[in-house]
Amino acid sequence: MGTAAAAADVVIPACAAVGIAFALWQWFLVSKVKVSAYAAPGNGHHHGGPVFRMEDDGEDVGIGGDHDEEEEEGAGDRTVAVARCAEIQSAISVGANSFLFTQYKYLAAFTAIFAVVIFLFLGSVHRFSTDSRPCQYTRGRTCKPALANATFSAIAFLLGAATSVVSGYLGMRIATYANARTTLEARRGIGAAFATAFRSGAVMGFLLASLGLLVLYATIKVFGLYYGDDWEGLYESVTGYGLGGSSMALFGRVGGGIYTKAADVGADLVGKVERNIPEDDPRNPAVIADNVGDNVGDIAGMGSDLFGSYAESTCAALFVASISSFGADHDFAAVAYPLLISAAGLLVCLVTTLLATDLFMVKTVRGVAPALKLQLIISTVLMTVAALVVSFAALPANFTMFDFGAVKQVKNWHLFFCVATGLWAGLAIGFTTEYFTSNAYSPVRDVADSCKTGAATNVIFGLALGYKSVIVPVFAIAVSIYVGFTLASIYGIAVAALGMLSTVATGLAIDAYGPISDNAGGIAEMAGMSRRIRQMTDALDAAGNTTAAIGKGFAIGSAALVSLALFGAFVSRAGVADVNVLNPKVFVGLLVGAMLPYWFSAMTMRSVGSAALKMVEEVRRQFAAIPGLMEGRAAPDYARCVRISTDASLREMMPPGALVLLAPLLTGTFFGVRTLAGLLAGALVSGVQIAISASNSGGAWDNAKKYIEAGASDHAKSLGPKGSDAHKAAVIGDTIGDPLKDTSGPSLNILIKLMAVESLVFAPFFAAHGGLIFK
Amino acid sequence: MGTAAAAADVVIPACAAVGIAFALWQWFLVSKVKVSAYAAPGNGHHHGGPVFRMEDDGEDVGIGGDHDEEEEEGAGDRTVAVARCAEIQSAISVGANSFLFTQYKYLAAFTAIFAVVIFLFLGSVHRFSTDSRPCQYTRGRTCKPALANATFSAIAFLLGAATSVVSGYLGMRIATYANARTTLEARRGIGAAFATAFRSGAVMGFLLASLGLLVLYATIKVFGLYYGDDWEGLYESVTGYGLGGSSMALFGRVGGGIYTKAADVGADLVGKVERNIPEDDPRNPAVIADNVGDNVGDIAGMGSDLFGSYAESTCAALFVASISSFGADHDFAAVAYPLLISAAGLLVCLVTTLLATDLFMVKTVRGVAPALKLQLIISTVLMTVAALVVSFAALPANFTMFDFGAVKQVKNWHLFFCVATGLWAGLAIGFTTEYFTSNAYSPVRDVADSCKTGAATNVIFGLALGYKSVIVPVFAIAVSIYVGFTLASIYGIAVAALGMLSTVATGLAIDAYGPISDNAGGIAEMAGMSRRIRQMTDALDAAGNTTAAIGKGFAIGSAALVSLALFGAFVSRAGVADVNVLNPKVFVGLLVGAMLPYWFSAMTMRSVGSAALKMVEEVRRQFAAIPGLMEGRAAPDYARCVRISTDASLREMMPPGALVLLAPLLTGTFFGVRTLAGLLAGALVSGVQIAISASNSGGAWDNAKKYIEAGASDHAKSLGPKGSDAHKAAVIGDTIGDPLKDTSGPSLNILIKLMAVESLVFAPFFAAHGGLIFK
Repeated sequence: MGTAAAAADVVIPACAAVGIAFALWQWFLVSKVKVSAYAAPGNGHHHGGPVFRMEDDGEDVGIGGDHDEEEEEGAGDRTVAVARCAEIQSAISVGANSFLFTQYKYLAAFTAIFAVVIFLFLGSVHRFSTDSRPCQYTRGRTCKPALANATFSAIAFLLGAATSVVSGYLGMRIATYANARTTLEARRGIGAAFATAFRSGAVMGFLLASLGLLVLYATIKVFGLYYGDDWEGLYESVTGYGLGGSSMALFGRVGGGIYTKAADVGADLVGKVERNIPEDDPRNPAVIADNVGDNVGDIAGMGSDLFGSYAESTCAALFVASISSFGADHDFAAVAYPLLISAAGLLVCLVTTLLATDLFMVKTVRGVAPALKLQLIISTVLMTVAALVVSFAALPANFTMFDFGAVKQVKNWHLFFCVATGLWAGLAIGFTTEYFTSNAYSPVRDVADSCKTGAATNVIFGLALGYKSVIVPVFAIAVSIYVGFTLASIYGIAVAALGMLSTVATGLAIDAYGPISDNAGGIAEMAGMSRRIRQMTDALDAAGNTTAAIGKGFAIGSAALVSLALFGAFVSRAGVADVNVLNPKVFVGLLVGAMLPYWFSAMTMRSVGSAALKMVEEVRRQFAAIPGLMEGRAAPDYARCVRISTDASLREMMPPGALVLLAPLLTGTFFGVRTLAGLLAGALVSGVQIAISASNSGGAWDNAKKYIEAGASDHAKSLGPKGSDAHKAAVIGDTIGDPLKDTSGPSLNILIKLMAVESLVFAPFFAAHGGLIFK
Repeated sequence: MGTAAAAADVVIPACAAVGIAFALWQWFLVSKVKVSAYAAPGNGHHHGGPVFRMEDDGEDVGIGGDHDEEEEEGAGDRTVAVARCAEIQSAISVGANSFLFTQYKYLAAFTAIFAVVIFLFLGSVHRFSTDSRPCQYTRGRTCKPALANATFSAIAFLLGAATSVVSGYLGMRIATYANARTTLEARRGIGAAFATAFRSGAVMGFLLASLGLLVLYATIKVFGLYYGDDWEGLYESVTGYGLGGSSMALFGRVGGGIYTKAADVGADLVGKVERNIPEDDPRNPAVIADNVGDNVGDIAGMGSDLFGSYAESTCAALFVASISSFGADHDFAAVAYPLLISAAGLLVCLVTTLLATDLFMVKTVRGVAPALKLQLIISTVLMTVAALVVSFAALPANFTMFDFGAVKQVKNWHLFFCVATGLWAGLAIGFTTEYFTSNAYSPVRDVADSCKTGAATNVIFGLALGYKSVIVPVFAIAVSIYVGFTLASIYGIAVAALGMLSTVATGLAIDAYGPISDNAGGIAEMAGMSRRIRQMTDALDAAGNTTAAIGKGFAIGSAALVSLALFGAFVSRAGVADVNVLNPKVFVGLLVGAMLPYWFSAMTMRSVGSAALKMVEEVRRQFAAIPGLMEGRAAPDYARCVRISTDASLREMMPPGALVLLAPLLTGTFFGVRTLAGLLAGALVSGVQIAISASNSGGAWDNAKKYIEAGASDHAKSLGPKGSDAHKAAVIGDTIGDPLKDTSGPSLNILIKLMAVESLVFAPFFAAHGGLIFK
């Protein structure tokens, strides 16, 4: 097996390196699109004057062009349009940068404090003794002191947090780099624009997946220098990596979600509803904040979310492997199976991406959505083959897995089945989500139809649609769980989650494509590009809406599996033999746990609501106070709106963050591991439902509105046009859906994962000192 | 103990008889209010002509008085007003009667078929053998054949169904009898009107609680003639009574809920939003259907729901007692403890009711809400004392309880604690509900305030409020569960539920008071009574809105406890020793179970939506097609709207009903008892949250709208008046809340209870033959 281990040591870093190289190559290709004129230093002011500036100096500058006056991208206007795009892009980029850096300052403080908490809690398990102690699982061996685990867990936590932040930041950078380029490429046709947006998404997807893999691999290797033969301690400490990734994801999702939706809801409520001006109209003071929001919420937030899932499922699998026969036999190739699956996934996604960008180029507007769907299918099929190869190459034919105190006999093809089930369950969830949120199918059309009788029926039908859309994904997750659990106990669940996430690079590429196209459309509107270009960016955006919903489906599906895997690892590490619902401690935990997602959603939704109210007041104030704003003769004060979103999201992300982080800590400390186990199970089974239904209700409302606006069928025409009563009702539904689909819904993924990984990291403490009240 | 048993045999039927007598006396008092003129036969047409007739003959009859022309109840107008009230009352009563009878026809068919299903499934346990067999729990004794249990379970099911239907029907009768009387009594002042509405509510409360107790007691006694010493078989069969009650409740709640909300939403969408005419305006064709709906949904539906809870918690307690030391010792007084608690509850409620109607009469409009709250507090305090007395009188000092295969030592004061915890948890839930749904407190005011920025923020804030309102009730339920479970295992939960339900007569009186006042207001509006009278009925109605929310809080809180008790009884009966979440069969059940309330809600909400769309079309059609309708010169065709609601609700109640009834049957048969146990636990912990949040969001929207309409404070005035943009936004929220609070939310109570009681009744079958796939 030495050869296999050596091979793993070559394959994993090599694949990660290939992934990073591929991402950089894609970035290079995107960079060939020139947002010229403005790019060279010194000539930034050769056109009509800077329209989009973030300074708050109240200087009156004329809007570059009245909105209603259409400009074709003729030879004479080209430089002006390009320059305008460049300026808008720069305003968005500056806003996003400034928000993320402010957020990172808070996060740095939090991370430092929490690292100390981890060290103190875990160090106290053996009263900060520096003596080695007998191992817990591998009888007869000696393991490193608990103090070492405390130290390395804290370090792993910091590494995970850092990787998550870097991934999110890089994603934001490429997205704000690509948005205007997509707009400009639309002049060359839909194919070029699609390729730019999709390539940029791929940069993010590959950077994130490769970085995650590489840092985790390096951590294991470096920690291994100290731990040597003590694999229990090694992989226990490594779980800190998952906790770090996920806690950054929490703040990224919640903070970014509040940011983006406060701006979006605020902009829509005054702009579309009161002033009757189009989305992304440059006269709307909140329009830059809205576009910044897409980047910090949907890009950085989603990136850190999926990175967290990926890190956590890998950590859960590694931990369980380390206390199974793989660990006892010190079979590195087998222990590294999750990493090898991810490495193979990178190669599969690379091939899949090339197919979309080079082999089968998108040529028509109608081709966009099928092209994205094809990506999902191809990557799933290829990955199934790759998983088969990895399973037979890396694993021994027979081995045993830790099964809550017992051991389970497992064969290598069992694990292949687990991975494949997760992978295909992900595809099933993706397609169900598409069915319920794309306006090509009857569910969204029914919701659009219900707008005829007003906003109330629209909301009732939309909520019902969201509830109904839960059925298939839950069954898909249930099947994965049953297969994984039955074949390989908790390890089976962990690798099923990894299977679902193995194509994460493609998933993220598709997902990031959405907000990039959304931004591209916004820039086209603000820069006053021609109707033809706006129609093209709208088509890219509409496809992006559905893929965003699909991405959310993947995120929640994988979160459910990941969190169950972490739950199992926690239960194993805490030495709990059963989690019996008939035990009142467990049942009470279950009931209260099922309540937590509601409490959390109440906080996040209210936060969006209050922040949006502030934004509405500011936007109204500007329309009233700035003369000539509605006529396009004066520029709004974009910076104030950006600041409102920034302040609100940073302030409001604290209470929900505290709830998620404190709930497991307090429950474990005061009520013990059984109540905590109940709490985790309750939060998991309840949170999955709300997350899916919230995402899909929101997606459906959004696309029902777009369906009416596009007016592509007789039915749609009978409901429209823009400004009709049915359309107004649709806008209300869309606005309600915004916080559901982009703030509270997706944040719940993190709630269920983070509570579970935190419990796992603190499990030694809870097992030793937990349950002060219920002892 | 023979004396104690004899005493129980006297006390239980005596209390039930006293309760029935009291109800009849209250009815007699209400009947003294004469809806005269019209009452004598032959003189029905001495006034302007029958305005409200249910015939569909298209005859053009003039509306009795233009709405804007106010009529004081002067001597000359008195007979006209009274006659009009009588006609409207009769139209509502005819509509309600006809709906219920049509519904009962369907239910009779269902009940007959399901009774056969019960007989076949349970009979098959021992292959329809007529031989006696050894008892399951009391070793060494001989029990009656399974075939006998099958027969008696089916009979008990029929009895439970019949009692539920009779209770719901009687409630509807008294409510439609009292509505116009309340309107007319308002001429004599708020005190008289309140007393009439409240007395009528008490008729329903006492009839239902007494009948439930009496029929159950009689069933035990009569079945006992056959069963003799076989108490296991006796109380196992009696559980069919709970199943019968609850399955009728399911259809009552779902059918009634769809009926009432289709009419309400339909009436509001066209009347208030499009035509800008007030609620309950006689020109609105859906107005009679709306008022009928209050009676079939809120009265008959709520009555059968609480009757179901009551019957089920008693059955669960009786069953567990029968397999504990009470049963082994054949100590009837102890086994009958749940019945004695309910009997004592009747007396307590009787005293409490007299305090409200006779001792401390309501004198001002402001006094209504506090009077109702005082009822809750007084009944809770008195009941605590009564429970103490019953616990020491009926129970031995020490005994043992069945505890999932083991036995638990219990003392009599332990059970008192369980009952008291449930009782006070109910009060805590009630007050929390009041806080979140009454416009006297900040939550509803914040929601009203958010209407400033439109319907979207109103909905976002309202949803967030509902989510937040879950926290305290869930903790209250969790504490009851922990106390009950820890002190007396599953029996403790059952008696905690009984404690919460012991004051059900008062709870129902308060609850039924709401729709009666609502109807009274509607009749005042339709009959064109003076503004003073309408203000009085509005005040009664506003207080009723909050009490309705409190009633729903009780219903869901008790449902959670009841369903957990039934769950425990099911697990005991099925011989499952543990329900371990780490078992994949259990976890999969848990996850899918948590999804069921969403599936169910999707069905019921869509049903309301579609039925409301049909209603909207019909109302619009009538306004367009009937000349002079808007001007009040022609009468609308009320009967068609009544028919639309009837047809829709009967058709649409089938699929959700099938889901609830088939889910446990199929799961148990194909996947076995562990998956079923997981399913029940998942549905319970997830359903509670949605039910509470849906009810409270709906209640808050309703009262936020009323807050703006009433304009009682400067803040409220700044949002109003009726017809302002904020008010329109509030109306949209109210309309969205209608199906949430009156259809899908409360139906979930029944979902969680019914699935559990069905599993309990079919447990012998599942234990013997279940798990065809997962065996």
